[in-house]
Amino acid sequence: MESRDQVPEKLSVLHPIRDAFLQVRQRSVSICGSLEVEDFVVQSIPEASPVKWHLAHTTWFFETFVLEPFLEDFKPFHPFFGYLFNSYYHQAGERHPRAERGMLSRPTLEEVLRYRAQVEQATLRLLAARSDPEVHRRVVLGTHHEQQHQELILTDIKTCLGRNPLLPALLGQDPPSAGSAPDLEYTEVAGGQVRIGALAGLKRFHFDNEGPEHIVTLRPFSIANRLVSNGEYLEFVLAGGYDDPVNWLSDGWTERTSHRWSRPEYWFLDRKKWREYTLYGPMDLDPDNPVTHVSFYEADAYARWLGARLPTEFEWEHAARCLGVTDRAPGYEDESLHPRGRSETGCGQFFGDCWQWTASAYGPYPGFRPTSDALGEYNGKFMANQMVLRGSSCATPAGHERLTYRNFFYPKDRWQFTGIRLARDLA
Amino acid sequence: MESRDQVPEKLSVLHPIRDAFLQVRQRSVSICGSLEVEDFVVQSIPEASPVKWHLAHTTWFFETFVLEPFLEDFKPFHPFFGYLFNSYYHQAGERHPRAERGMLSRPTLEEVLRYRAQVEQATLRLLAARSDPEVHRRVVLGTHHEQQHQELILTDIKTCLGRNPLLPALLGQDPPSAGSAPDLEYTEVAGGQVRIGALAGLKRFHFDNEGPEHIVTLRPFSIANRLVSNGEYLEFVLAGGYDDPVNWLSDGWTERTSHRWSRPEYWFLDRKKWREYTLYGPMDLDPDNPVTHVSFYEADAYARWLGARLPTEFEWEHAARCLGVTDRAPGYEDESLHPRGRSETGCGQFFGDCWQWTASAYGPYPGFRPTSDALGEYNGKFMANQMVLRGSSCATPAGHERLTYRNFFYPKDRWQFTGIRLARDLA
Amino acid sequence: MESRDQVPEKLSVLHPIRDAFLQVRQRSVSICGSLEVEDFVVQSIPEASPVKWHLAHTTWFFETFVLEPFLEDFKPFHPFFGYLFNSYYHQAGERHPRAERGMLSRPTLEEVLRYRAQVEQATLRLLAARSDPEVHRRVVLGTHHEQQHQELILTDIKTCLGRNPLLPALLGQDPPSAGSAPDLEYTEVAGGQVRIGALAGLKRFHFDNEGPEHIVTLRPFSIANRLVSNGEYLEFVLAGGYDDPVNWLSDGWTERTSHRWSRPEYWFLDRKKWREYTLYGPMDLDPDNPVTHVSFYEADAYARWLGARLPTEFEWEHAARCLGVTDRAPGYEDESLHPRGRSETGCGQFFGDCWQWTASAYGPYPGFRPTSDALGEYNGKFMANQMVLRGSSCATPAGHERLTYRNFFYPKDRWQFTGIRLARDLA
Amino acid sequence: MESRDQVPEKLSVLHPIRDAFLQVRQRSVSICGSLEVEDFVVQSIPEASPVKWHLAHTTWFFETFVLEPFLEDFKPFHPFFGYLFNSYYHQAGERHPRAERGMLSRPTLEEVLRYRAQVEQATLRLLAARSDPEVHRRVVLGTHHEQQHQELILTDIKTCLGRNPLLPALLGQDPPSAGSAPDLEYTEVAGGQVRIGALAGLKRFHFDNEGPEHIVTLRPFSIANRLVSNGEYLEFVLAGGYDDPVNWLSDGWTERTSHRWSRPEYWFLDRKKWREYTLYGPMDLDPDNPVTHVSFYEADAYARWLGARLPTEFEWEHAARCLGVTDRAPGYEDESLHPRGRSETGCGQFFGDCWQWTASAYGPYPGFRPTSDALGEYNGKFMANQMVLRGSSCATPAGHERLTYRNFFYPKDRWQFTGIRLARDLA
Repeated sequence: MESRDQVPEKLSVLHPIRDAFLQVRQRSVSICGSLEVEDFVVQSIPEASPVKWHLAHTTWFFETFVLEPFLEDFKPFHPFFGYLFNSYYHQAGERHPRAERGMLSRPTLEEVLRYRAQVEQATLRLLAARSDPEVHRRVVLGTHHEQQHQELILTDIKTCLGRNPLLPALLGQDPPSAGSAPDLEYTEVAGGQVRIGALAGLKRFHFDNEGPEHIVTLRPFSIANRLVSNGEYLEFVLAGGYDDPVNWLSDGWTERTSHRWSRPEYWFLDRKKWREYTLYGPMDLDPDNPVTHVSFYEADAYARWLGARLPTEFEWEHAARCLGVTDRAPGYEDESLHPRGRSETGCGQFFGDCWQWTASAYGPYPGFRPTSDALGEYNGKFMANQMVLRGSSCATPAGHERLTYRNFFYPKDRWQFTGIRLARDLA
Repeated sequence: MESRDQVPEKLSVLHPIRDAFLQVRQRSVSICGSLEVEDFVVQSIPEASPVKWHLAHTTWFFETFVLEPFLEDFKPFHPFFGYLFNSYYHQAGERHPRAERGMLSRPTLEEVLRYRAQVEQATLRLLAARSDPEVHRRVVLGTHHEQQHQELILTDIKTCLGRNPLLPALLGQDPPSAGSAPDLEYTEVAGGQVRIGALAGLKRFHFDNEGPEHIVTLRPFSIANRLVSNGEYLEFVLAGGYDDPVNWLSDGWTERTSHRWSRPEYWFLDRKKWREYTLYGPMDLDPDNPVTHVSFYEADAYARWLGARLPTEFEWEHAARCLGVTDRAPGYEDESLHPRGRSETGCGQFFGDCWQWTASAYGPYPGFRPTSDALGEYNGKFMANQMVLRGSSCATPAGHERLTYRNFFYPKDRWQFTGIRLARDLA
Repeated sequence: MESRDQVPEKLSVLHPIRDAFLQVRQRSVSICGSLEVEDFVVQSIPEASPVKWHLAHTTWFFETFVLEPFLEDFKPFHPFFGYLFNSYYHQAGERHPRAERGMLSRPTLEEVLRYRAQVEQATLRLLAARSDPEVHRRVVLGTHHEQQHQELILTDIKTCLGRNPLLPALLGQDPPSAGSAPDLEYTEVAGGQVRIGALAGLKRFHFDNEGPEHIVTLRPFSIANRLVSNGEYLEFVLAGGYDDPVNWLSDGWTERTSHRWSRPEYWFLDRKKWREYTLYGPMDLDPDNPVTHVSFYEADAYARWLGARLPTEFEWEHAARCLGVTDRAPGYEDESLHPRGRSETGCGQFFGDCWQWTASAYGPYPGFRPTSDALGEYNGKFMANQMVLRGSSCATPAGHERLTYRNFFYPKDRWQFTGIRLARDLA
Repeated sequence: MESRDQVPEKLSVLHPIRDAFLQVRQRSVSICGSLEVEDFVVQSIPEASPVKWHLAHTTWFFETFVLEPFLEDFKPFHPFFGYLFNSYYHQAGERHPRAERGMLSRPTLEEVLRYRAQVEQATLRLLAARSDPEVHRRVVLGTHHEQQHQELILTDIKTCLGRNPLLPALLGQDPPSAGSAPDLEYTEVAGGQVRIGALAGLKRFHFDNEGPEHIVTLRPFSIANRLVSNGEYLEFVLAGGYDDPVNWLSDGWTERTSHRWSRPEYWFLDRKKWREYTLYGPMDLDPDNPVTHVSFYEADAYARWLGARLPTEFEWEHAARCLGVTDRAPGYEDESLHPRGRSETGCGQFFGDCWQWTASAYGPYPGFRPTSDALGEYNGKFMANQMVLRGSSCATPAGHERLTYRNFFYPKDRWQFTGIRLARDLA
């Protein structure tokens, strides 16, 4: 097998798709640099997957949807990897049960890395040999798909380390310093007929669920200038907000009760002091940092308690546009793996700290039609029971955020970097 | 205790609120006329409740929200009934666990009927004594609330009898004869900016979740002239539609697999013949009758298999209006407790046969604000994880249906009289 | 159908088997005399069955094992009753799931009573017509089987009423007055080679699991003169006995933890006063009454806490014989449905108050062989995971107790009238 | 930290306790020699533990029960390891939940090996410094305890690899060749009063549950000359033995049904050929090898189907003695990690191939009293719901087997090397 350095000559010409592909593939491994071999194996909650699985699954995607259909002498790396590393692509055949991913000690990490290298080499060769636009489309899709999994690698390993009684840190250094949160203010946004979603045919990549672009009629509303902070959310906790059913949706109250929620996922009290597990290890709770790892139910309960509400995904997108937020908005130079207070005015934390729960259930936009091949199973399959999140988080790869991006999780999910942006009706 | 016949003289003047109250209260008991005492006790699935519980809970509603706040010398009928017969009104205090309602042999049916009579008498006296509009509002709300429970009484008892290996009939007689289904056709409906929801301040009652009235922008679409029939749905079953994951939402496939769905809830094969349990007992499957007792997942899978889709709740309401359907539309004189094929053209089965799953998740309309008292918990509490159903069913009390009515159930629920109306995008 | 009074003339001759049959059959109904129709339907815990089911199942036993094989023109009362009212007799075919017995509102109580009457008539006619000893053997077996279910009817209805927040009494009157418990003393019993079990071939009925009679070698031991009292057990509760894992078997600790046991099944604290639900309704806890409704794990933990132990079933039987206890021992004239303190010395409470958990796992005696027909499934099927209880309880029908009787329940079971007799090794 | 080679001089004198300690400690690591790091992490069934956990737990035993009480300047290796690696010793404090052992990626294998080395060094120093007999007693106990865990390491890793769809082999080489099974014959054994159990005060180590020695009265019986073979058990499978409830105990039928058992744990059909997963990888089923990985329920059902039965633990021990089997009996020079057919007559497979389910529930021998310290929790805690197994298996460390050894598992357990020896009553 060739080493990754021996990329064939002719590939070295400018090739943005290939470059993005290579860069993303390498980053998936590099973000795991501080992990121990043992960390790659564990699945600590059913919703999460072992890191090893993510590294293999993203590779299986290229093998199955790029190499298999376009390589004439295609031979799978291993006959069982399709079974093991398929996730929800039912068309692609039988799958290993999701809840048992943590049972697989084999293939080893080393084998998975060999799998990665081999599929990468073959993909690079294919890109060099064929300029079929469908190949390009699929490599781009696979690259974005892998970026999604990079965020999951970080949140999934956080569930593993954060549930370990030893509370080990993923990162040895201290986190970048945080600013103090500005006063919470609401900006009025005019309603009317607004365009929502991604326009087809543009150069810029977007997932199928971001379109078709369409018109939504909005009433005027106001939206908060930043995310809800730890300090603000702590008031809700201390005021008994978790114990008063009036604040909660019926299903939320059931979740809160059966899981005994009384605070965000990684908060804990240590000798009467509020602390928080982070990827930098346990830290004192910083009241200026945005609250994170709250479920939709908690975000909704907090807003209700305050007499505010969550924005719809349409309001979020429209407000961001009106406020001049662009896809590249955050501009946070320093990489942090924990959301931070931002004293700079203007940015509004639409991107880069926490995904923001919206009041919108995840469903198809008018006229949405999944592509008819197996890839079409990608996003449309999940259009029930989940809520849309907008923005991006500290764990989102740079360049992956978009104004039209629709992330989605179940309303009970708390293991992502999820936070709260408030909105209000105008009187 | 006075008998129900001894209504005080002064009440006999024209009083539509009182008349509706009395009529609805009497109907709740009369629709149970063919039940055995034992039938009132059983809770056959966690989602359903014993009939006895429904009769008491609807009574508790009047006792708690009408008598307690407005009667000066109020004394509860029984100190524990608030605990036993409260449902989701958290503000009203602790509740008996829902899943254990079938464990309660006491109070007996006879005691519950005494409870009903006493609360009715007191309510009538209150209506006679006070003309407080808030009392009127609450009695009207309680009346509509009880109508909702009348439908649940019928569907809940169906789960009890339909799961009993003896397959007993609720009704002794034969069902009213059914017509043959006309050809399935699609009517084009123009899009644009349309008004959705109930206008506040009108005489006609509506639930809080039906408003505020607001503007929705629709694309043109087409909608089916009738519900999907048993015969059509059987083709899906026989074609292996339940076994091909391509047809299914991811969560739907999980449900189908864990519950081994392979056909609608009450269908069964008897010596190679398709039969269906109905409240009239087991019957041969009539291919012209609308398919019923399908979950949202099945409705969605069927539509996808066909290349069609479900309408949104906005499309449904708009189409009904465009097609001249009104609140009183069905006009089916003969009462049936099973949905039937309708050969008459025009009616379109918007009302009176099956509730129709829409593609819309149940959420608040823009500007929706629940009332701030305990009654406000009524509908808003459920605005997560459920799908909107529109129309009405054969079990809906006459006069209870409305064009703006928003029924809601979990996408997995199959015990209601739920059916399928198809829609399509225009090319 | 003939009424029960019209017993054919020739049956009126002396016939102990028939007399016992008739008496037991009538008692099954008469002990239900104070129940409401609704009480017959409920299954409040999976281990219990609805009273209606017991009345039908005991009838099905006679129909299946007596009428069907010996009646030439046998026709089942109802083709589905075999499916519904079979319990663990696998040979007799498919069975309705045990956990769903409470879902059956039909057949109604009235139908079940008609079923009882018809099978009784046919059995009486068969007894009059045939003197086949196998028929006699089976009628006797069915009679004893029905007596077992009489005890279950009482304990099962207690779980239903005792879990109802209204805490209704089964019996209107006060319980018979109780005596004060004498001092707890231990009697030494010599060991050696002792005969255990029932001798085959005697007139007196016994179940198959009580034989063969065999020799067991015992070490000398001492045994308590009465059951452990509420007052004594309360000391264990108040001393934190439920919270110290040292007292508990590993599996017991797991049960205690997952079910949050902190006291016997029907005890509760009412304004700092210990009370107990009984079939006579809630009563103050009488410290002289034997503690009851404790699991084996609790009995074992209590004994361990005290430095004592439970007797083996062999020690129990041998001690009872040595102490002059006989099958007819209790001689309690007054019927009570609650265990009581017994001030009379000598009787020792071996019978009549609480079943006594032994340290013996339920298994076959040496040489035990179940009969080869379906009846052979009766007792041998359960010889795993259960513990033997000896003696009898206040709910055991008079005449049903025996020195060799082996009752058996799971070590976690608490809904029977189970109590504690202590033993000790001699130093 | 000193390396293991730098053992202090004075230890080099002959010291069997120290030698056994060292040898056993080293073997725990050496039997893991062919594992990948990833294999040490996984817990594939709740009953099993990760290999890493076993290596740490056996070390925690010495740290807690030897070092902590006897070392003056004792400091734990890590303050949390007591929480993480305690198992059922409740007295020793709070424990990490058993079912979440597979969630712990940290401490890493390397840290655990450092933990082992440090505790070993300290123990060796203690042994060199103190000749306190209680220290010796505890080191010996810890050594035997660790030998038990060596067997668990092998069976637990087998559940991990055997459930992996890749079916990886633990061992690279072929298994030692197996002999052909001799004809199955029964030897008559005289009954009478026999001594059972281990005599206290002997030099030879035994666990507390093997005593006190006591007299049991046995009836004459006959016992099989070898274990039941795969070929014989396959007949039961092919005859539908798994599908006929007549063969099964009631609880066994429930297990078989809920887990869909249709063959021993590691058997599978591969293109109509019976194969078996072994630690050497998948192999064709050898009909002469003993059947293994069957639960007690299956062993009991097989015996019942054949008209035979399982021996009691007393019969097993007595028969072994009568047949001249001694503690050192097997004499199988070649180490195998799979049970094999043994053509040599005489040995009778009492040791060395499969643990043998007996008909005896696991309970205390007469007069058994657990030691009063935390070590006393060791065996007595489990005396409910489990069945005794006698003999030893191919995974039992040489020298660990004893005629009086009482192994115990739940009747549903199948992941140990468990097999079947038959017995019969004499006519």
